[in-house]
Amino acid sequence: GKIRVWTEEDAINAWPSFAASAHKGIFGTGYIIAGSDHMPGSALLAAKGALRSGIGKLIIGTSQFASAILAGEVPETTYEFDGLEKTANGSIPKKLKAAAIGPGLENEDLIEQAVQTLLEGDFPVVLDAGALQKRRYMKREIPPILTPHPGEFSRMTGLTVKDIQSSRIQTALQYAAENEVILILKGEQTVIAFPDGDAIINLTGNSALAKGGSGDTLTGILTACLCTHRTIKEAAANAVLIHGMTADLWVSKYGVRTMTASDISDMIPEVMKNLENKKGI
Amino acid sequence: GKIRVWTEEDAINAWPSFAASAHKGIFGTGYIIAGSDHMPGSALLAAKGALRSGIGKLIIGTSQFASAILAGEVPETTYEFDGLEKTANGSIPKKLKAAAIGPGLENEDLIEQAVQTLLEGDFPVVLDAGALQKRRYMKREIPPILTPHPGEFSRMTGLTVKDIQSSRIQTALQYAAENEVILILKGEQTVIAFPDGDAIINLTGNSALAKGGSGDTLTGILTACLCTHRTIKEAAANAVLIHGMTADLWVSKYGVRTMTASDISDMIPEVMKNLENKKGI
Amino acid sequence: GKIRVWTEEDAINAWPSFAASAHKGIFGTGYIIAGSDHMPGSALLAAKGALRSGIGKLIIGTSQFASAILAGEVPETTYEFDGLEKTANGSIPKKLKAAAIGPGLENEDLIEQAVQTLLEGDFPVVLDAGALQKRRYMKREIPPILTPHPGEFSRMTGLTVKDIQSSRIQTALQYAAENEVILILKGEQTVIAFPDGDAIINLTGNSALAKGGSGDTLTGILTACLCTHRTIKEAAANAVLIHGMTADLWVSKYGVRTMTASDISDMIPEVMKNLENKKGI
Amino acid sequence: GKIRVWTEEDAINAWPSFAASAHKGIFGTGYIIAGSDHMPGSALLAAKGALRSGIGKLIIGTSQFASAILAGEVPETTYEFDGLEKTANGSIPKKLKAAAIGPGLENEDLIEQAVQTLLEGDFPVVLDAGALQKRRYMKREIPPILTPHPGEFSRMTGLTVKDIQSSRIQTALQYAAENEVILILKGEQTVIAFPDGDAIINLTGNSALAKGGSGDTLTGILTACLCTHRTIKEAAANAVLIHGMTADLWVSKYGVRTMTASDISDMIPEVMKNLENKKGI
Ligand SMILES: Nc1ncnc2c1ncn2[C@@H]1O[C@H](COP(=O)(O)O)[C@@H](O)[C@H]1O
Ligand SMILES: Nc1ncnc2c1ncn2[C@@H]1O[C@H](COP(=O)(O)O)[C@@H](O)[C@H]1O
Ligand SMILES: Nc1ncnc2c1ncn2[C@@H]1O[C@H](COP(=O)(O)O)[C@@H](O)[C@H]1O
Ligand SMILES: Nc1ncnc2c1ncn2[C@@H]1O[C@H](COP(=O)(O)O)[C@@H](O)[C@H]1O
Ligand SMILES: [Mg+2]
Ligand SMILES: [Mg+2]
Ligand SMILES: [Mg+2]
Ligand SMILES: [Mg+2]
Repeated sequence: GKIRVWTEEDAINAWPSFAASAHKGIFGTGYIIAGSDHMPGSALLAAKGALRSGIGKLIIGTSQFASAILAGEVPETTYEFDGLEKTANGSIPKKLKAAAIGPGLENEDLIEQAVQTLLEGDFPVVLDAGALQKRRYMKREIPPILTPHPGEFSRMTGLTVKDIQSSRIQTALQYAAENEVILILKGEQTVIAFPDGDAIINLTGNSALAKGGSGDTLTGILTACLCTHRTIKEAAANAVLIHGMTADLWVSKYGVRTMTASDISDMIPEVMKNLENKKGI
Repeated sequence: GKIRVWTEEDAINAWPSFAASAHKGIFGTGYIIAGSDHMPGSALLAAKGALRSGIGKLIIGTSQFASAILAGEVPETTYEFDGLEKTANGSIPKKLKAAAIGPGLENEDLIEQAVQTLLEGDFPVVLDAGALQKRRYMKREIPPILTPHPGEFSRMTGLTVKDIQSSRIQTALQYAAENEVILILKGEQTVIAFPDGDAIINLTGNSALAKGGSGDTLTGILTACLCTHRTIKEAAANAVLIHGMTADLWVSKYGVRTMTASDISDMIPEVMKNLENKKGI
Repeated sequence: GKIRVWTEEDAINAWPSFAASAHKGIFGTGYIIAGSDHMPGSALLAAKGALRSGIGKLIIGTSQFASAILAGEVPETTYEFDGLEKTANGSIPKKLKAAAIGPGLENEDLIEQAVQTLLEGDFPVVLDAGALQKRRYMKREIPPILTPHPGEFSRMTGLTVKDIQSSRIQTALQYAAENEVILILKGEQTVIAFPDGDAIINLTGNSALAKGGSGDTLTGILTACLCTHRTIKEAAANAVLIHGMTADLWVSKYGVRTMTASDISDMIPEVMKNLENKKGI
Repeated sequence: GKIRVWTEEDAINAWPSFAASAHKGIFGTGYIIAGSDHMPGSALLAAKGALRSGIGKLIIGTSQFASAILAGEVPETTYEFDGLEKTANGSIPKKLKAAAIGPGLENEDLIEQAVQTLLEGDFPVVLDAGALQKRRYMKREIPPILTPHPGEFSRMTGLTVKDIQSSRIQTALQYAAENEVILILKGEQTVIAFPDGDAIINLTGNSALAKGGSGDTLTGILTACLCTHRTIKEAAANAVLIHGMTADLWVSKYGVRTMTASDISDMIPEVMKNLENKKGI
């Protein structure tokens, strides 16, 4: 296993390029199951993150009530009403290139069944927030991608937050190997641990991200990167790096306590341009 | 038949100018039938495109659920609830200068009847997305304007996407002539083929447009241009050129994978100013 | 009667100044009855215009459906559900400093009764759009303020648009005197005619305003100016001037066909700052 | 008792700093009970103020109708439907770090009971607008924080507005001492009076704030500051100072009558950056 820091240069090299004739089908359709009536914003934040990160088409699976809230803000998105229930019943949209489930969801039984349906697919699947539970995973060609913050990782493992934080890299690597999953342990210096023993450390981001909704946005960015990148590793590393860079850019402009999760997506174009400019040189 | 590239200079020359005393009636009323409960955004994107492109008045025909989603974002618009159903039943708003149908629509039977109603009018009619089917067209003074991407053109013709793409101009011209329609075959280097054998090639735009919703926005821009331009040819060519120029401007500012379809309309004022500036010189 | 052009200098001189300790009560509460289920945007545009023009408090009387559409965009506003019906029944909010009725309204009987209720109050009343009918006005200390475009003025008077346009100032003055109203005849070179025979000509604005919703926005700006200005004349002249200046500023930045009615309100802060700067010199 | 003016330097010194590893739990969860069906905007304004001021998580207690209006604008927020009713019945979210109640609320009986429930908690509680009544307060470790404008303070005390305004500091201090509350008497030169006889005077802000919704926004900013600051005094003083500075910045940019309450929150990032820059020097 190799443990390394993901740099801006890594990000630039891993960024995929596409033919001038590329059409939306090539960038792929992502499906995000998120949001409930009293937490509709989590679906909106995930959608914004995905749309700003190059996804071809985005379907949001949520309640009709939540869909009405999202649609004016992200008109590029289409909706699968009651996507959680439908997925729990085994039905998902066709030709998905990536899927994510969890932000703003609560019904544990439905989530459990929906997670199973998604994992039966052959595309990458991100599990976040409400979809993060103590659970066994069947072996899968593309390992499930789990994105817990330390509190959620504690719930998944029974370890205390303190124990987790005192040994983030080793704990993450051990969990990834034992469960054959990709584990993105969030927080300062996010660790991306792979079942083969590799780990990527992210140094971007700061406590401006310590706000409700930051993680939902990451789920969206990650879903988009999974649709567009060549490898899961590069997709995960780039998503986490870009997410953090938005906060670094914000802080350099407006100070540290004024950022909201919505701002993450709004900063992505400038962050990406900065990266591209460095590539040019 | 003359095949030519549409240049910025062509666009500037074709751009109509109006008397200082012009009122909204002169710019005309456009009617766009688009959007459904789980695809409301397509109507919003079309509306935004039309409003930024000089339309006098805009009526959106959609469900009440979708209207509620649009209205806060595009308050300049009025609504015909269940416009698809009403049009299928033969009823449309009065004094239309142009109409479009298709984005975000699914009920094939209703669409089919609504298309017939619109084509019985004496104004230009744009058929997009759900309104693009294998179909025969009655002869009409202003030919129907069809805006398929290659996948939709394949559905309309039975040709494979590969065959279409390998001979875009000839295939488009042949279809336009045989069916007496104006065919806008979208994608890199959009072809606008006329039944008289003329074709216009567009060189603006790039894969930042390869995203859900880009085409819906074009439908809106086109509807507005049809309301304001002297000829259908100039309207179609200018709409496609402006649409593409927004993506070229975006990419020069923010890189290639961060644009969303909403950004197309947001960039139009700057694109138009750039064009006007060139005219000035 | 004196006929004069209203200049920027006039506007600056007429702009009221307030004590540093002024509170919202001093700026007054305005009440705008506007918007219906399929034309909710007209109420939103009027609200935006009023909020950007210095109103203290704003109450919008509209349907609950329309209120839900407005509230996220103009959170400073409170709502009187079914304000048209309530006003028709003789009930209005207390302590109004100005009121307006008309944009996006259709039910002629209710409008007629609501207009009567408002005119029984002792505050200035703006009648626009749906509230503009052939009608006799009771004598009133503050004359009703009518804001027709030429088409509406034709409906009110039976004159043809052509006749109106060929003699805008004289026709407006005659109507104002005969009906004891203040008549704001909109269009290029808006005429504000007073029952005492005075007329003010406005030279700002351009055909970028020739769009659905421009007039609704003016109704909002005017309502706010009536709340804050010393005299009705100054309020009317300043409202019309500011409204037009936003379009002049827009055109200087982005060209002439890309403006929407929403942009009018968005440009007001910059227009006002430009005016204030000139005052400073 | 010490009476002093709160300066920018005071604000900078009082601004808390946090470890680079801080997570959202450290910044705390705030709960704001606000907004009703025909005054939903007050909840939105409070939410925007809180989110821009560094809160970790925000829960809004309001009707489902109002929640739907907020959710698209502040997706970082979660909702407690009918939070007023639930709190009146003794039920509140867990682990609150601060709470506020009042903006846009009307049902006096429910408010009264909800206030009692909140005051039984061990976190700071802000009472504003509809929650400001003539009332006796039980002794409480953290005194209730009341934010009346002079009209509301008149309602609470029976004093005339004129009497209040002629002796703002003494009247505020007396009320704070007698009722063992923290009294924030709003208006030009807001006074923050503490039960121990100390008073802080704020010199920022201007009559651009004399608009519906300004106070609702302050309630949100204050709730966030209570979550993040070391002491209640510093939180209150900083919230009032920042709130006023946004208006001072606006006026320097756009003149005095064009600001809306929404703009307060939008200006916070720039205001905070300016403060941080001064700190740096
Ligand atoms: N102090 C911090 N430094 C860097 N990143 C952080 C910090 N706090 C939170 N984040 C990031 O913000 C997001 C929070 O996710 P969540 O807790 O699910 O909302 C994750 O991507 C974290 O890595
Ligand atoms: N690679 C590309 N280069 C230029 N234009 C494109 C490209 N991909 C998509 N577009 C344009 O984006 C729009 C997509 O339409 P639709 O597929 O209906 O959403 C059309 O106007 C296409 O011409
Ligand atoms: N060509 C024009 N020149 C100047 N102002 C115009 C022009 N066309 C429309 N307007 C203004 O835009 C508004 C249109 O109002 P309405 O027709 O009610 O939407 C009025 O304030 C008109 O004076
Ligand atoms: N003339 C003024 N000068 C300074 N601050 C003001 C002025 N008028 C109102 N404010 C502030 O604006 C807010 C109004 O609160 P409210 O009346 O509850 O909406 C309070 O924070 C006031 O202190
Ligand atoms: Mg999370
Ligand atoms: Mg399309
Ligand atoms: Mg009008
Ligand atoms: Mg208040």
